Amino acid sequence: MADIIYPYPTLKSFAFDVFKKMGCPIPQAALATEVLLSADLRGIDSHGIARLSGYVRLWEAARVNATPELRTVHESPSTAVVDGDRGLGLVVAPHAMNLAIAKARTAGTGWVAVKNSNHFGIAGYHAMMALEHDMIGIAMTNASPLVAPTFSIERLLGTNPIAVAIPADKQPPFIADFATTTAANGKLEILQRKNLDAPPGWVQTKDGSPSTDANEVKNGGALIPLGSDREHGSHKGYCLGAWVDIFSAVLSGANYGPWVPPFVAFLAPPSDPVGEGIGHFFGAMRIDAFRSASEFKAHMDNWITRFRSAQPVPGQPRVMIPGDPEREITQERLDHGIPLNPKVEEDLMVLGTKFGLKF
Amino acid sequence: MADIIYPYPTLKSFAFDVFKKMGCPIPQAALATEVLLSADLRGIDSHGIARLSGYVRLWEAARVNATPELRTVHESPSTAVVDGDRGLGLVVAPHAMNLAIAKARTAGTGWVAVKNSNHFGIAGYHAMMALEHDMIGIAMTNASPLVAPTFSIERLLGTNPIAVAIPADKQPPFIADFATTTAANGKLEILQRKNLDAPPGWVQTKDGSPSTDANEVKNGGALIPLGSDREHGSHKGYCLGAWVDIFSAVLSGANYGPWVPPFVAFLAPPSDPVGEGIGHFFGAMRIDAFRSASEFKAHMDNWITRFRSAQPVPGQPRVMIPGDPEREITQERLDHGIPLNPKVEEDLMVLGTKFGLKF
Repeated sequence: MADIIYPYPTLKSFAFDVFKKMGCPIPQAALATEVLLSADLRGIDSHGIARLSGYVRLWEAARVNATPELRTVHESPSTAVVDGDRGLGLVVAPHAMNLAIAKARTAGTGWVAVKNSNHFGIAGYHAMMALEHDMIGIAMTNASPLVAPTFSIERLLGTNPIAVAIPADKQPPFIADFATTTAANGKLEILQRKNLDAPPGWVQTKDGSPSTDANEVKNGGALIPLGSDREHGSHKGYCLGAWVDIFSAVLSGANYGPWVPPFVAFLAPPSDPVGEGIGHFFGAMRIDAFRSASEFKAHMDNWITRFRSAQPVPGQPRVMIPGDPEREITQERLDHGIPLNPKVEEDLMVLGTKFGLKF
Repeated sequence: MADIIYPYPTLKSFAFDVFKKMGCPIPQAALATEVLLSADLRGIDSHGIARLSGYVRLWEAARVNATPELRTVHESPSTAVVDGDRGLGLVVAPHAMNLAIAKARTAGTGWVAVKNSNHFGIAGYHAMMALEHDMIGIAMTNASPLVAPTFSIERLLGTNPIAVAIPADKQPPFIADFATTTAANGKLEILQRKNLDAPPGWVQTKDGSPSTDANEVKNGGALIPLGSDREHGSHKGYCLGAWVDIFSAVLSGANYGPWVPPFVAFLAPPSDPVGEGIGHFFGAMRIDAFRSASEFKAHMDNWITRFRSAQPVPGQPRVMIPGDPEREITQERLDHGIPLNPKVEEDLMVLGTKFGLKF
């Protein structure tokens, strides 16, 4: 079945109403909506409104607190640790990123680790918050363990994304936002819906053998760190995922590695937690703590222009700058609407019925 | 021909004498030696004493200043920019890392960008400097352009390594140190010496076609970002390399992208520089700016123990923690000596003759 196109304001209004029904105060419901739907606008369909009912189920299971008290539990001039009080990561994360930005204003940089949180949508949203302040933004989070370290058959890491947003002047900003696996789980979900195989190097079976079955992770298999295999650098992807896990959770006091609670409510969190909730890590670096922001941004324009004008390999139209594809999709979707998979549409209708809301 | 084994003190004494002959003051000659040879000790043979004659040639070409005045040209409570005065990166980098550590002591974290420097040996050495201070260390550098961004046939990035060193308690520290390419150039050099092909996905021809020729980069081809191809996430490796380039050079005022001067002295630097020398970026994060260092290190022990005890895939003896292989090689080489390729040995003998030193 073909995707159905919904205007952005329609989805926004629905998600806002759902978050209100969960008991989120209005400003937090609005923020959670904006963060969640930024995924749909940027073309990262797996992390957007498709997950709304997942957040609701976590709330129903009392694993999300709709009215969290966000507290700074430790700090230094350039750092802080925030206790997310089991709040929606969609709300906790912008709070923590704003704190990083405030720290950067006085100390030059700000670094905030978060514990006791939940999934925060796309990392890119939070990193991008720094841009308007002439700061570089960094965001990362750990996530449910689906990834096997190199040479392991056990799932010990999440897809643990990293986002880095860097301002430019006349050029649009540089925005990298990527899972530290060869492919994000959302890419597999797309293949599952279409009954297609995965390319070699994306997943392994529960015994650690190579596989092209897009359903392998559901069968106890694992996603593979960026690099695909040892010969192609999967140990580097493992390093990256581990780095994100440690910064997000060991620094903050959240759960790490195999102890990270699963996003899906039908799987219980581990009974022997090593911390509280899931963890995030945010950074904000004031450009003019290093050099004049106008100089920096002029050089970023030069960097971007040079890379974008690089000669492409035959058959490819162009060389892209991180953030280019997502910016183009955003414009397209603001203009023409957001396509929803029929299964997602049905899921939202069920959700609407539950709350007495029309979808 | 087989490798010849040299005791570490022999190589150390020789390198120290060479740096003194270049005119380095004794403390700087000793530091440069220690940093350079840390690569040999950790098994990263491409970045160690094999490069000594390369540094000498840069000095002969007046592209390395043996007596630099290292200056802080910009700073905030948690940041600084250092002008390396064309010094050896082997000396400039520890200076900058010490500055980052000093900033972290008062501000919680310290972040130092460096311009006007040269190649700094292995990133891991500098990141590891933070460990004894109960800090997390980060080091990165840009490098001669040998890497084509995804979809490009132009070489616009270096192998741009990232190192992250994280202290533990009873367990040895977590030390990740990796090029942001599928394979480091040193891996290709090993294949070249043995007349072996490279695995698919490491290099491309100068026209952007896939290749397994280990000499491809010498023929105008390029290394490929971590991920190998778009389907396996090479755009993420490209993001990582770009991130390192921008932090190291656009923040500091060094040359970036294709303007980075080549390490080899027989290639002239670009005639239209966009900055000064090459750039590095360092970070130090005081653990107890986030939580008690003893708590953190106990959890790191738990993290490390859990990951190291993960069930390996059949045929593999174990799952490793970043830093494990290098630590084991260090012990082996301190005990039994460092193997030198005959070509490297010959190169060092020629170098000895030049300076009237016995090798």
